[in-house]
Amino acid sequence: MKKDDCIFCKIAAGEIPSAKVYEDENVIAFRDIAPQAPVHVVFIPKDHVLSSADDITEDNAKIIADIFVAIKKTAESLGLENGYRIINNCGEDGAQSVKHIHFHLLGGKKLPERIV
Amino acid sequence: MKKDDCIFCKIAAGEIPSAKVYEDENVIAFRDIAPQAPVHVVFIPKDHVLSSADDITEDNAKIIADIFVAIKKTAESLGLENGYRIINNCGEDGAQSVKHIHFHLLGGKKLPERIV
Repeated sequence: MKKDDCIFCKIAAGEIPSAKVYEDENVIAFRDIAPQAPVHVVFIPKDHVLSSADDITEDNAKIIADIFVAIKKTAESLGLENGYRIINNCGEDGAQSVKHIHFHLLGGKKLPERIV
Repeated sequence: MKKDDCIFCKIAAGEIPSAKVYEDENVIAFRDIAPQAPVHVVFIPKDHVLSSADDITEDNAKIIADIFVAIKKTAESLGLENGYRIINNCGEDGAQSVKHIHFHLLGGKKLPERIV
């Protein structure tokens, strides 16, 4: 499922270029264009199945597990053996930018203990 | 599975008190003792199945989906209709405190756009 006005759907479809670092059947990951850490990668489901974490139900949650498997593999391939942080922003209070669920993987340096 | 020296295993077992806000068969959630936002809840699998996100594989990832379903339900019950942020810290660079995988749910105010 593709949403016509969604920039992440266009990236998943290859209509907008991205610096891709991971891809499997259901998930694609690319470098954030405004990185906030030495490694900053964005993971999305290829399909526009969820606009945000607030759309998660028992019936559709498997894609979240798929994304976390993808994150783990990518962290390994990018050499983040000292650790990393995974962030999902949901809605206005969460400062969610694109309304296609996505997860940030951040690493490559010691991140602050304070998380907000 | 319970790890004897793990504070989150003790919380899950009720051996250490916590301000519990959610519980189902596999997941438990409680208020963070050092909240960084008006709502700050920690979600853990009851069993010590994963020390961190770095332990995730295809075979054990379902618990992550379970946790995100729990987060969604808890966000709703706590009135976070304007959104929230979900954070997982992994390893030393991620500033992970307790080595029992856990997810922070933060909300109740507009969170900063900068995520680290």
